[in-house]
Amino acid sequence: MATSEFDLIKRCFLDQGLGFSRSGIELGIGDDCALLRSPNNLSLALSMDTLVAGIHFPADANPAQIAHRALAVNLSDLAAMAAQPLGFTLALTLPHSDVDWVEQFAQGLLPLAQEFNCPLIGGDTTRGPLAITLQVHGEVDPRLALRRDAALSEQLVCVTGTLGDAAAGLLITGASSHLGAGFAFAQQPTQAESDFLLSRYFAPRPQIAFARAAAPHLRAGIDISDGLLGDLGHVLAASGIGARLDLESIPFSAASRRCLSREHAEQAALAGGDDYELCVVLAPEALAKAQTVAKSVGVQLTVIGSTLQHPGLELVRGGESVKASAEAYQHFAVEAS
Amino acid sequence: MATSEFDLIKRCFLDQGLGFSRSGIELGIGDDCALLRSPNNLSLALSMDTLVAGIHFPADANPAQIAHRALAVNLSDLAAMAAQPLGFTLALTLPHSDVDWVEQFAQGLLPLAQEFNCPLIGGDTTRGPLAITLQVHGEVDPRLALRRDAALSEQLVCVTGTLGDAAAGLLITGASSHLGAGFAFAQQPTQAESDFLLSRYFAPRPQIAFARAAAPHLRAGIDISDGLLGDLGHVLAASGIGARLDLESIPFSAASRRCLSREHAEQAALAGGDDYELCVVLAPEALAKAQTVAKSVGVQLTVIGSTLQHPGLELVRGGESVKASAEAYQHFAVEAS
Repeated sequence: MATSEFDLIKRCFLDQGLGFSRSGIELGIGDDCALLRSPNNLSLALSMDTLVAGIHFPADANPAQIAHRALAVNLSDLAAMAAQPLGFTLALTLPHSDVDWVEQFAQGLLPLAQEFNCPLIGGDTTRGPLAITLQVHGEVDPRLALRRDAALSEQLVCVTGTLGDAAAGLLITGASSHLGAGFAFAQQPTQAESDFLLSRYFAPRPQIAFARAAAPHLRAGIDISDGLLGDLGHVLAASGIGARLDLESIPFSAASRRCLSREHAEQAALAGGDDYELCVVLAPEALAKAQTVAKSVGVQLTVIGSTLQHPGLELVRGGESVKASAEAYQHFAVEAS
Repeated sequence: MATSEFDLIKRCFLDQGLGFSRSGIELGIGDDCALLRSPNNLSLALSMDTLVAGIHFPADANPAQIAHRALAVNLSDLAAMAAQPLGFTLALTLPHSDVDWVEQFAQGLLPLAQEFNCPLIGGDTTRGPLAITLQVHGEVDPRLALRRDAALSEQLVCVTGTLGDAAAGLLITGASSHLGAGFAFAQQPTQAESDFLLSRYFAPRPQIAFARAAAPHLRAGIDISDGLLGDLGHVLAASGIGARLDLESIPFSAASRRCLSREHAEQAALAGGDDYELCVVLAPEALAKAQTVAKSVGVQLTVIGSTLQHPGLELVRGGESVKASAEAYQHFAVEAS
């Protein structure tokens, strides 16, 4: 490789402005370590994710799209903890030195980094099979952090936005869905619907604003990366409780409602994953305040069920119990599909 | 993959005790984010490194050895900042679910994690070509952090331990050296010498204890991962100064002195890399105190040169200037060799 690591990083990341300074970052890229400093009463929240070519995205995918999605899904983990983004590190493994590719990749990171005031503060660049590991760092008052293990019974289960859109978007890319060969459109999406569903897959919106503003009214939370069943299941297991979900309450987008059968729309919401909406648990008396916050940040918040003292996840449609597929619980299988 | 991500992590990492609790870690593995909390006056230092199979280690290398080395070289970055280890995250990419491999890998992490009170606090496990990205987190008083850009002219350049051993160790593994085909043993190592040199490559000692205790007496520092020339070069460039090194002062191990020609021993020290000793710059009047600290933690500290106002790195042997190879500056090439 002709270009040295330092030159590559400098040219493609720093020169594009990804290493901007902000309060809390005492020292960014360029030393043995980055140095962060949080106000006294805050904790540092951190989360790491890896995306591998051929597994999580096609090797020939648009570098800017990969980058945007990689940062978005990591920021979503901060949202799920109600943490304010502070900075991110990036380990980029490339099969060969391709400055064009890295420049596009850096350009894909920049809008979200700027919007969430979350600069690149460190990382590593190595040769090898194309893969991206990203770690985000954020600040949160530990009393307001949305932990998975803090949900109580007799509370409400809510989700932000609409569910299942990303699974439908993935279908448009031609990638095989882990929901099975039968998972297909009942109606072909229009161009506008197709654009919407693809953007839901490639450019999920980290629900930072809602989480930050609503945290005082929320009890527990998680972001929906694997599908509602699996992710809510983590909250219930960690909290030692159960829940009953009303399938008829699940919020679908207009595109999802029109293009998918009811059964497939439900399947996409329950087990499709990649939506990066939040699933939160809150006390019934906190709902009005949480709804006010949601409106103020332009987010739809929908009650989809309630928690129960007895462990287990019960699905109800029209008052009758429905059996759920175990598939959504198999995170590794889902991720590797 | 039959085993779910959660089961794999739980069985191989948590059950082996890698996720132990300690002060400063409010929340470890198992939620959307880990939560760290540092005392008010400290900064959080963090550093990330990736090791790729076939590039940084042979794909069939001993998993425990890979793990030990991966954590050691990251802890060395904390040492280079004079930071106290706090916890690490791990992104492990595996071609297939191999519980035996991961168990051995976890066992390789455990001794260092315990010794440095640095538990696993989060990460990601995905399918893909074998690669490890590790991020370490530590605490440091920002006034004592060993930054690269803080060296002054007319100060002393010192190194801990001995240099060039890891490059000689790599030679024993049969891996081709980026130092060229001519880089070879003049005398075959004995079994004891071979064991020593191999351990210097596979199990470098992060110089945390020395860095923590000596930090008040040091001005700047870096760990030697690429070779003395390249790494000291980073300090000089960041500080906008130069240095003169006396090649005859470079500390070599007995094994290196006996098995390598003088020329090759120097080459290994200057451009071999992987030693993970510290190169520090300090005021002449601080040397005695730094030496006292070094003795107290059982570390050899050697003065090898001095800094100059004029940029550039001058090498001297017996009072005469020597031309240095540019190779050591090419980190990416070195790393990919």
